[in-house]
Amino acid sequence: MTAAATIEASPSQAHYLGTVMRLKPGAEVALFNGRDGEWLAHIERIGRGKASLAIRSQLRPQSASPDLWLLFAPIKRGPIDFLAQKATELGVSALRPVITRNTAVERVNVERLRANAVEAAEQCGRLDVPEVAEPQPLDAVLAGWSPGRRIMLCDETGTAPPVADGLPREPGPWAVLVGPEGGFAPAELDALAKTPFVTRVGLGPRILRADTAALAALSCWQALIGDWRQAKR
Amino acid sequence: MTAAATIEASPSQAHYLGTVMRLKPGAEVALFNGRDGEWLAHIERIGRGKASLAIRSQLRPQSASPDLWLLFAPIKRGPIDFLAQKATELGVSALRPVITRNTAVERVNVERLRANAVEAAEQCGRLDVPEVAEPQPLDAVLAGWSPGRRIMLCDETGTAPPVADGLPREPGPWAVLVGPEGGFAPAELDALAKTPFVTRVGLGPRILRADTAALAALSCWQALIGDWRQAKR
Repeated sequence: MTAAATIEASPSQAHYLGTVMRLKPGAEVALFNGRDGEWLAHIERIGRGKASLAIRSQLRPQSASPDLWLLFAPIKRGPIDFLAQKATELGVSALRPVITRNTAVERVNVERLRANAVEAAEQCGRLDVPEVAEPQPLDAVLAGWSPGRRIMLCDETGTAPPVADGLPREPGPWAVLVGPEGGFAPAELDALAKTPFVTRVGLGPRILRADTAALAALSCWQALIGDWRQAKR
Repeated sequence: MTAAATIEASPSQAHYLGTVMRLKPGAEVALFNGRDGEWLAHIERIGRGKASLAIRSQLRPQSASPDLWLLFAPIKRGPIDFLAQKATELGVSALRPVITRNTAVERVNVERLRANAVEAAEQCGRLDVPEVAEPQPLDAVLAGWSPGRRIMLCDETGTAPPVADGLPREPGPWAVLVGPEGGFAPAELDALAKTPFVTRVGLGPRILRADTAALAALSCWQALIGDWRQAKR
């Protein structure tokens, strides 16, 4: 993006600006594309499914979210949409659905998750949108894993150290891994526990739903080693 | 509760057991009343809106949740139900809606919140249900505050210390206070910041929705000074 350029909104963006927000020509909007920071623009023309925006000036430079993936077993429609929104607010860089042995829901509408992530990024002031991957079997994901990325495994068996004690204060790429409703299979958990880049942590004495566990784990990670340790941008 | 006693289910409990869960006489269920621990029982008789349960033996002694209140500005229907469920899973002892200056939603269906809290307590293995208070103006709540209970104030202005640094590691009664969508009014925040039992903490650089902020704050509190520091029950 550069000042004085004009860009065309996509049909869904134009619908949002014109029909949902009821903006007219001249209205100001803030734009981001995940690379060039945030820009002030105004609406030049707007009509059914079309809008053109004149870029004025940069509001903020680009800022990166921490390199934190969320690996999660897919859950049903309402909770998974909610999870995509909240995980975006909590600053994940990628949402990766993984199929585990006890995963009941295997079909994932990746496009809908992406739409949820885009909307949440717009709402929370992020200048990037987390990548949303196609679902993959957990075994396959781990077989292709780059060992430089550590995994915080949410272990609900009660045998893992509490998260505040167990999470190594090591920066660098991480992933939070949360199992399905019903938990990981014992053999799956054994194999994960023996994997060198995996750290098991516990999230307390109560049984958390899969989406709650994911949000709690992301919050703890951000508070302990993520960008919540810094002041606000 | 005592072994060999028989108790009658409420109509809604009977509906849940018979119509939702489709249980028949002889089926085993676990019971709790918030005082006597968890008990194994079996269904003696079940019919339309009625069920009697014969208590067999205690499964677990009573366990207490931490003395942690959630004070939150009411939000609209979907998110507030969700918040009551998730906060229950995260172990709050009371849900207290507070009306702040920028609170847009002032009517709260307390009975519906209670039903959400009961269902979440059943699902997550808690043996108690958080109290759900009637909404009150924040000023009135603070005027009657017992100073022995500390408040963790989620401050989104970017000037508060990060939660992992700012939260005193002091046990004892606490409350997490989360403002409305749109935040606290500056005068409100000034007054809160000067209150001796209030600790301001920040939850990172992104703008969190009110429900996300509440769940993130409760997770951090539990991880840093709550019962997530202990092994699973």
